[in-house]
Amino acid sequence: MVIAPLEELKQDIEKVEAELQSVVEQRAGALRSAAEMMFCTGGKRLRPALVILVAKLFGAPKSGIYRIAAAIEMIHGASLIHDDVIDSTEVRRGAPTMNAIKGNQFSVLLGDFLLCQALLAVSELGRVDLLQVISQGVADMTQGQILEAQFQGDVTVSEETYMEVVDGKTSALMAAGCKLAALYSDATPAQVQAASDFGRNLGHAFQIVDDILDIWGDPAVLGKPVGSDLQEQKYTLPFLMSYGSSAEDEREEVHKLLANGSYPGEHIPELVKWMDRHQGRARASERATQYTLAAQSALEVLPVSKARDDLAQLVDFLVERQK
Amino acid sequence: MVIAPLEELKQDIEKVEAELQSVVEQRAGALRSAAEMMFCTGGKRLRPALVILVAKLFGAPKSGIYRIAAAIEMIHGASLIHDDVIDSTEVRRGAPTMNAIKGNQFSVLLGDFLLCQALLAVSELGRVDLLQVISQGVADMTQGQILEAQFQGDVTVSEETYMEVVDGKTSALMAAGCKLAALYSDATPAQVQAASDFGRNLGHAFQIVDDILDIWGDPAVLGKPVGSDLQEQKYTLPFLMSYGSSAEDEREEVHKLLANGSYPGEHIPELVKWMDRHQGRARASERATQYTLAAQSALEVLPVSKARDDLAQLVDFLVERQK
Repeated sequence: MVIAPLEELKQDIEKVEAELQSVVEQRAGALRSAAEMMFCTGGKRLRPALVILVAKLFGAPKSGIYRIAAAIEMIHGASLIHDDVIDSTEVRRGAPTMNAIKGNQFSVLLGDFLLCQALLAVSELGRVDLLQVISQGVADMTQGQILEAQFQGDVTVSEETYMEVVDGKTSALMAAGCKLAALYSDATPAQVQAASDFGRNLGHAFQIVDDILDIWGDPAVLGKPVGSDLQEQKYTLPFLMSYGSSAEDEREEVHKLLANGSYPGEHIPELVKWMDRHQGRARASERATQYTLAAQSALEVLPVSKARDDLAQLVDFLVERQK
Repeated sequence: MVIAPLEELKQDIEKVEAELQSVVEQRAGALRSAAEMMFCTGGKRLRPALVILVAKLFGAPKSGIYRIAAAIEMIHGASLIHDDVIDSTEVRRGAPTMNAIKGNQFSVLLGDFLLCQALLAVSELGRVDLLQVISQGVADMTQGQILEAQFQGDVTVSEETYMEVVDGKTSALMAAGCKLAALYSDATPAQVQAASDFGRNLGHAFQIVDDILDIWGDPAVLGKPVGSDLQEQKYTLPFLMSYGSSAEDEREEVHKLLANGSYPGEHIPELVKWMDRHQGRARASERATQYTLAAQSALEVLPVSKARDDLAQLVDFLVERQK
C-alpha cells in the first residue's frame, strides 16, 4: 500500500538513511556488517517520518532533525533486536532475525551499541533538553518492556495495566520522537506538549491495531503466523477484553485451550472464535479509534500546515490498515 | 584486604549508595526488587571511588559528583548483567548472577534500563559535555565487548588486538569516569586529558591483573574456579604472549589440549605449565606495570593533594594484589 505522506518524504528519509549510514561507516568488522544488514533491510521508517513531519509543522527543518530521526530509528532497531533475543524469535517480517543469524551474544551487544550510538548522535546537537527527553523515553520504553515480561502468561491482567505496558513499550518512543522534533524546532511549551500527546496517542492506537492484526490479519502481509502473540503467551487487548466479559465456565475453557495442544498454536482458531463471540476485535478497534481521535485533537493545537494534514492522514492510515 | 583510600571514602560512597537507592525507589515491582538485589550485594565500588578521588583533586566536590559516580556504577552493573547473559554465567564472586535468578529475558531488559537510567541521571546535571563523554564511553565499551565476542576462541589474536579489546571493555568506562570528574570540577583541558589518560592506563593495568589472577589467583578470593577465561575460550594476555613465543609443535600441543578433555577445564593445569614455561605470568605482569607507571605519570600533571596520593596508592594496590 502506498501512503502518500510517506512517499512525499522520500528525500527527507534519504537524509535519515545517510545519517544511519554514517554510523555504520565509522565502525569496522562484525559491527559494521551487522549494522549494514540491519539498516539495509529497510523497514517502513515510520518513526523517522513522524519526527520529520512534526518538525515541518514549524517550517523548514534544521539539518539536525535527520540526526534526531535516525536516533529514534536506531533505538527502535535496538529494542527490536533485544526483543527478538528475549522471545527467541527467528523470523521477523519474513526475514531471519539478528539473533537467528548472529546469535544472542552478538545481538545483545549490538542492541547496546545502537542505543548508545543514538544517544551520542543526539548529544552532538549540544542541547541538554533533547538528551533528557530521549533518555527518559528510552528508560520508559525499557520499563514498559519489563512490565510486559513480568505479566507474560498472565491472563488476568487488567486493561489498565495492559495500556501501561503499551505506553512504555510502544508509545514512549513515539512521544519522545514527536516531542524532540517540536523542541528542536523551537516550538512553544504548549506545542511541545501537544506534539508529545500526539505521539503518545498515536502509539497507543498503533499498538492496539498491531494486536488486532496479529490475530485477524493476513499472515502473508504480516510476515509471521497468525496468533504469534498468543503463542508467546502475550495476551493483548482483544484477548483481555474478551476474558473480562467471559463467565467463569468460559474462562475455564480458555485456560484449558491455552494449557493443552499437541502442537504450538493448535487451539488458536478456537480462541479466535471465543474472542469473536465477545466482540474482542470490534471492542479493541473502538479503543484504537478513541486514541486516534485523541491524536487528531492534539494536532489541532499545532500550526495549520501541509505537515499537519499529512500527520492527520498518517493517523487515518494506521487505523484503516486493520479494517 | 583493607585499602586505606577506599576506607576513608566511606562517607562519600554512602552518598553514591543514596543516589543508587533513589533510582531504585522511583520504580516498582520486579524492577525495584531486582535493582535492590543488585545494589545491595555491594561490590567494591571501585569506579565511584575513582570518580570521587579525581574530583577531590580540584577541591571539595560539588554534590552532582555522587550522581556521576552512581551513573558510572550503574553502567558497570548493566555491562556485568549483559556479560553474564552472554556467557551464561551462573555465579559471579560467589553469588548467583541475575540471569541465574531472574532469567535472560529480564536480565537483558534490566541492563538496558540501568544504562538509560545512568544517562538520564547525568543528563539531569544539565551539561552537554558530560553527556557526550559518558555516551561515548558506553559506545566504546560496547564496541570493545563486540570485538571480544568476535575474537572469542581465536588463539592467534595479536597482543595489539587484545589491548584494543581491553581498551574498550574495561578502560573506556574508567577513562570516562575520570574525565567526567575532571570536567565537572572545571579542570583545565590539560587536566581533563590527564585525568582521562590516568583512567585509561589504570583500566589497562587493572584488566591485565584480572587476567593474571584468573589463571594464577586463589579461587576462594576470586569466587570462581581458576581458568574461567580459558574455559570460556577467552584467551587473555598471558596466554597470547605464551602462544606468541611458542614453536609450531608446541602450538599444536596447545590446540590439542584446548580441543580435548573429558570434562571442562581438564587440561587447564597443563596449559598453565605451558604458560609458566613461557613466563606468561611475568611478562603480562611487566606489561601491567608499564601501564601503572603511565597512570602514575598522568597523575603528575594533576594538582598536588591528598587525593592525588590516594589515587597513587590505589594504583599500587591494584598491581600488588596479583603478586
